[in-house]
Amino acid sequence: MPPLYSMTQAADFPIEEYEARLERLHKAMKSAKMDAILLTTEAEVRYFTGFRTLFWLSPTRPWFLVIPANAAPIAIIPEIGTHVMASTWVSDIRTFSSPHENDDGVSLLVDVLKDKPRIGLLMGRETTLRMPLNDFMVLKDSLPASEWTDATAAVQSLRMIKSEREIALLSQICSIASGSFERAASFLHRGQTLKEVFRAFKIDLLASGADDVPYLVGGAGPGGYNDVISPPSDRPLTDGNVLMLDTGATLNGYFCDFDRNYTVGPASDATHKAYATLHRAIDAALDMARPGVTCADLFMVMANAIGGSKSDVGRFGHGLGMQLTEAPSLIDFDRTILKEGMVLTLEPSMAISDGKIMVHEENIVIRDGSPELLTRRAPTEIPILV
Amino acid sequence: MPPLYSMTQAADFPIEEYEARLERLHKAMKSAKMDAILLTTEAEVRYFTGFRTLFWLSPTRPWFLVIPANAAPIAIIPEIGTHVMASTWVSDIRTFSSPHENDDGVSLLVDVLKDKPRIGLLMGRETTLRMPLNDFMVLKDSLPASEWTDATAAVQSLRMIKSEREIALLSQICSIASGSFERAASFLHRGQTLKEVFRAFKIDLLASGADDVPYLVGGAGPGGYNDVISPPSDRPLTDGNVLMLDTGATLNGYFCDFDRNYTVGPASDATHKAYATLHRAIDAALDMARPGVTCADLFMVMANAIGGSKSDVGRFGHGLGMQLTEAPSLIDFDRTILKEGMVLTLEPSMAISDGKIMVHEENIVIRDGSPELLTRRAPTEIPILV
Repeated sequence: MPPLYSMTQAADFPIEEYEARLERLHKAMKSAKMDAILLTTEAEVRYFTGFRTLFWLSPTRPWFLVIPANAAPIAIIPEIGTHVMASTWVSDIRTFSSPHENDDGVSLLVDVLKDKPRIGLLMGRETTLRMPLNDFMVLKDSLPASEWTDATAAVQSLRMIKSEREIALLSQICSIASGSFERAASFLHRGQTLKEVFRAFKIDLLASGADDVPYLVGGAGPGGYNDVISPPSDRPLTDGNVLMLDTGATLNGYFCDFDRNYTVGPASDATHKAYATLHRAIDAALDMARPGVTCADLFMVMANAIGGSKSDVGRFGHGLGMQLTEAPSLIDFDRTILKEGMVLTLEPSMAISDGKIMVHEENIVIRDGSPELLTRRAPTEIPILV
Repeated sequence: MPPLYSMTQAADFPIEEYEARLERLHKAMKSAKMDAILLTTEAEVRYFTGFRTLFWLSPTRPWFLVIPANAAPIAIIPEIGTHVMASTWVSDIRTFSSPHENDDGVSLLVDVLKDKPRIGLLMGRETTLRMPLNDFMVLKDSLPASEWTDATAAVQSLRMIKSEREIALLSQICSIASGSFERAASFLHRGQTLKEVFRAFKIDLLASGADDVPYLVGGAGPGGYNDVISPPSDRPLTDGNVLMLDTGATLNGYFCDFDRNYTVGPASDATHKAYATLHRAIDAALDMARPGVTCADLFMVMANAIGGSKSDVGRFGHGLGMQLTEAPSLIDFDRTILKEGMVLTLEPSMAISDGKIMVHEENIVIRDGSPELLTRRAPTEIPILV
């Protein structure tokens, strides 16, 4: 059909973006002596192809991308994805009828991988093999001469460094969400249930330009909230509540991830104090976040600013991009060295009392010199809802 | 803190619901001779515990549920989830600091599983092992005496049959989405871009009671659309376009999954004909969907109603519940026998011409006698947008 009428996905980036990613991967594969990489997960398949669809939500069908050393990617996918994959820069697309009674792409994988002695696979921290384990066992048994090696470092170290095109999208979605948080006092108020609060906030995000709001969590309670991963309840906001909303909204499949805190009516001294402490912890992290510093350093400077009041969140930030959370982690054991182009969340948290916690969060890009804030910084005083 | 102020998740169902699920699982485990089942995925952990959070979107942390034969579930989870898990019926909650430098829950798993000779794990169709493969290899090596066995059939056969409580939620979200589709002609119109169409539709769903809209795909084009998994483009709706929207909206974590077709201005004869054919295919499926009939039968009756015009969707419907798509599949090789309480989508599709396809979809419950429609049936004539 004439391209004028093609309503399918425009690639999110020009081909040069994907060529550059592939070139960097080929370099990493060469030094790790890999003959091919097998990818099965949404973010990785999208990163190297531009193939974007919400259809991954359906667990029925596996999707595969094989990237041989020094060659272009080969997509091995269910027929239902042919049209969208054909709209990307990938030209070698092999499809299978899916769901299939006994061969959901495995024999096609064997064909492509059978002459590869050393195959990279994501096996490490933050990774999942998105295919039935039985099928993976058949694949392994069908390739008795192949050695499988962990490709986690090779792929994560690439994805950690964002291109300016990626940063532009991340900046845009952070700006959209910053606007919603800044407007929140105009549409959130005492007496609303937390469910109503969430609904109003999601609608504002969509109306102001977010494509989707895959992630909105939060909590509210007198003097603080108990956790940071809950869905909303039917309890209404009342005076003295501290409300926290933490959102991962998306634009072209790229996420923001940050939160804001509000007080319903006047806040207690303890609330003011915790808020100021966390604000200072982020100041300290912004002062330190430079190329060459480690994630552990950044964690420690925030931990020192907070003192001993550890929450159970477990880390003070993480990478951000095509996923709500990505490598690296801002935690004491992560020695990843910050580099220009890394996009991170700074997310210090602290216990207040009675199991209550408070969390602040901002999104930044590591630059040559001071980091660039993607979020518009939280106000220095906790905003009030009436 | 006083429960009055607890803003955390209320369990989605009373404890009896979870007790009944556990009892059915124990029975299935007994006949499959399993000493324990290890679960790692969102839907399964939620099904047996009530633990519900969007935080699964973050790939950083693994979450585990071990269900021993004849005993209560044991949650082995990151500390960040303690509070939400404690609000469920699960009393045995073992936590680990996460992310962890070298032990993201594996040693706790070994402790619980070390005396279990035969451990069930989801390895089959539609399943994923959601933990790093390296960690699973450590776990396996730490349990040299244990045999691992596929628990897919045991778990899927349970989840396929919905309780009346689950059906009530599914009915509610299908009703909400039916309303949005019925109202669509009042807020969708010629000249809107597909991105604007998607945005308006999501906002209407949220405003009318959906908790979230994790899934909205669709397409539009002259005389039809090319695929059913695309994100929206910037192309405006013009006369003669056929627009399809397919949504998975949620209520308390339960999905609807159905679509509706619209024509912008008058439709072509080919469009009317395809629309009528697919409507008749669903009539035929509704006439046949009874306990005792197989999924393959239901597939065949729709395939016969359509004739030879196969699309590349690959099946004509599937299970529905806590996930957008669940087992079983309406396809020629799936011999699953329909039982009362199964919730299914009927989703016949057909090729029209030039790579264009059309898809209809309704959601039903298998009952003793005629099936119950959860969706309000699509109109017999394609609705017109102006």
